[in-house]
Amino acid sequence: MPGPHDHHVVIVGGGFAGLWATRALAHAPVCVTLIDRANHHLFQPLLYQVATAGLSSPDIAAPLRHILRNQANVEVRMAGVERIGAQARHVVLDDGATLGYDTLLLATGVTHTYFGHDEWAPHAPGLKTLDDALHLRRRLLLAFEHAESESDPQRRAAWLSFAIVGGGPTGVELAGTLAEIAHHTLRREFRHIDPASAKVRLIEAGPRVLSSFPESLSEKARRQLQRLGVEVVTGTPVDAISDEGFHLGGTFVPARTVVWAAGVAASPLARTLGIELDRAGRVPVLPDLTVPGHPEIFVAGDLAAVSQHDGKAVPGVAPAAKQMGRYVGETIRARLANKPAAAFRYRDYGNLATIGRMAAVVDLRGLRFSGLLAWWFWLAAHVFFLIGFRNRIVVLLNWFLAYWSYQRAARIIVGHDSARRSTDADAG
Amino acid sequence: MPGPHDHHVVIVGGGFAGLWATRALAHAPVCVTLIDRANHHLFQPLLYQVATAGLSSPDIAAPLRHILRNQANVEVRMAGVERIGAQARHVVLDDGATLGYDTLLLATGVTHTYFGHDEWAPHAPGLKTLDDALHLRRRLLLAFEHAESESDPQRRAAWLSFAIVGGGPTGVELAGTLAEIAHHTLRREFRHIDPASAKVRLIEAGPRVLSSFPESLSEKARRQLQRLGVEVVTGTPVDAISDEGFHLGGTFVPARTVVWAAGVAASPLARTLGIELDRAGRVPVLPDLTVPGHPEIFVAGDLAAVSQHDGKAVPGVAPAAKQMGRYVGETIRARLANKPAAAFRYRDYGNLATIGRMAAVVDLRGLRFSGLLAWWFWLAAHVFFLIGFRNRIVVLLNWFLAYWSYQRAARIIVGHDSARRSTDADAG
Repeated sequence: MPGPHDHHVVIVGGGFAGLWATRALAHAPVCVTLIDRANHHLFQPLLYQVATAGLSSPDIAAPLRHILRNQANVEVRMAGVERIGAQARHVVLDDGATLGYDTLLLATGVTHTYFGHDEWAPHAPGLKTLDDALHLRRRLLLAFEHAESESDPQRRAAWLSFAIVGGGPTGVELAGTLAEIAHHTLRREFRHIDPASAKVRLIEAGPRVLSSFPESLSEKARRQLQRLGVEVVTGTPVDAISDEGFHLGGTFVPARTVVWAAGVAASPLARTLGIELDRAGRVPVLPDLTVPGHPEIFVAGDLAAVSQHDGKAVPGVAPAAKQMGRYVGETIRARLANKPAAAFRYRDYGNLATIGRMAAVVDLRGLRFSGLLAWWFWLAAHVFFLIGFRNRIVVLLNWFLAYWSYQRAARIIVGHDSARRSTDADAG
Repeated sequence: MPGPHDHHVVIVGGGFAGLWATRALAHAPVCVTLIDRANHHLFQPLLYQVATAGLSSPDIAAPLRHILRNQANVEVRMAGVERIGAQARHVVLDDGATLGYDTLLLATGVTHTYFGHDEWAPHAPGLKTLDDALHLRRRLLLAFEHAESESDPQRRAAWLSFAIVGGGPTGVELAGTLAEIAHHTLRREFRHIDPASAKVRLIEAGPRVLSSFPESLSEKARRQLQRLGVEVVTGTPVDAISDEGFHLGGTFVPARTVVWAAGVAASPLARTLGIELDRAGRVPVLPDLTVPGHPEIFVAGDLAAVSQHDGKAVPGVAPAAKQMGRYVGETIRARLANKPAAAFRYRDYGNLATIGRMAAVVDLRGLRFSGLLAWWFWLAAHVFFLIGFRNRIVVLLNWFLAYWSYQRAARIIVGHDSARRSTDADAG
């Protein structure tokens, strides 16, 4: 229980950065309030598996309260933060409460952006939260249902036309897995359509997919995607998206299901700091991850714009967020003990991306490999880093059964009726 | 693929009755269209476990298309049925399509009813579908979150006050499990409230809980519930329910979370048959489960009002629905082969109900037992009847870990944001 005289650390965001910072403060003479809109920490690297019905939500999420139940100096608060009062040193919550702090850590991450085309949002949903993943799952599965009951051949083809916009890791994972669903998982289940006739397009505006990897691995990824049945289009940006399809280089392509995996923008909360942000809305921080002029405000994870010693930006990946979080916790402890703190230094252990069934690319500081071996490496790394013994077992079991049977256990459509009802209840 | 000259059987509802009838027609010279609003068959006896965060949706559901993928004479259609044209021999779907039939099986089950008080619905949600279960899970978990952030002691107590209306099997299961969550699962997770101080009340208008069991087992169930921390109130109906609480025998009891497990009414589709229904809206059928005057229309499962040879009604339980479904399938085959069909006869193998952690009651035609042994019996029976190898493994694993650690893996709140968004998207 926080005492009134303890140094109060407020941490906004229970992702990798926020949670690792909280844990690093376990034995520090502080009280911590960890605030998150959701009641759970999410293992984001496997979120695409929930969207593609391979895993269910609880497999990759754990309640923050449960993870931190034995850390006595932490209080978890489920709420949204509306704004930061940097001068008054407080945060204002969406339930109207105001919470003062001695030290603040902002770790609210990124959301997707449509590059000024917010009107595309309803037609091309993105993937950042569990709710996004369940929404996407419903859309993907319902597309095949609509195709089955549609008698007009053109409209049916539009329901069987899928596009994923953005060739980063998320786009590549989604495209590869969707192709697997169309070609294998749904085999023999429909009577009027052949799911394998579905078109899955991955569209990247830049010259190659997985641009954070070396060119040779991008090329390997492209070939593995094509082998899985994905049509990879590079060098062409999408001009417009509607309910019926999208425009690409002046041509209209019918597609009832478009997924947005392209733009990433910092969480809007950073704007309330009152300082200048970078082009993507991230907070340019000093080498100790504090905000210029506010040594009591740290920013960590995807929301922080940090340069490495070689001038390159620290990438927005889970290991970097964990390292920043741990660094902030340790720096707060050092300060309270009047010890000096070194600058943050990112340790790059490598870069992994999965593509689909038995296909992945791995770049371990120069050691590069792809295909089946890379996929096993990717799987082992991800299961190892999952939080919770049960989750590791269940995810391994699901993977084993999925790859043995080509089945995906979570092909259950939920949400539509409940969506209506809960909104009504809220309104009432 | 149904041919134009085959005898066309339309089955409405993919629950136990509809699915078992479909399977019984596997080798019959018919084509079958199975219509369901959902894309999955649901193992309803474990639905309360999804509502109380012990299991996730895919653990107790399987896509109907997948279950039936190898039965070539079946087509699955995901749609709602708006009405039945008994004279024209067709059903009208909610997407406007009309589907003719030679034989119809209505197996749409029951929904909950508020005995003419539909205004209670937003305050006291019921539990019939997976969407209901996820909605209920969110409500139950959020109640503890609200209590934690509420500083007024009276309002806090109202958030920690839960009532389950209806002392049948569902009400008993929910009350027992909710008490376990409050007393064990959430221990040490909150800083401002003691979850174990939560009040869980089970309210039954009749004289005893589990009224379909012998009196001695009702009494055992009541005692086991009290041991788990549930306050059992019998003989008093609820007079009113609002957002703030409920009225019981003239007294207002504050409770922000009320769950409806009391009234059951037949699916409204039966009304479009144009014949007289019983008081609960069920269809009184002949001994061969057909509608009087319509030998081509069968009704099975909870929607059918059937008397046994001793005059008692066939109960609305899963084994009865399966038996009726199988009977309908076999009767259709007999008819097409010009063979006589016997009347439906219900085989009562017994009655089980679980109460909570290691507590259950079992009545096997006179052999009665309760407590731990009954709980093991209940568990074995339920895991055995689950559809799918993976589900059996995962459910056993979850149970093992839950009972060993007192944890519940699915304590993940989803749905609120997605609810808003998908409704917006629908509107747009």
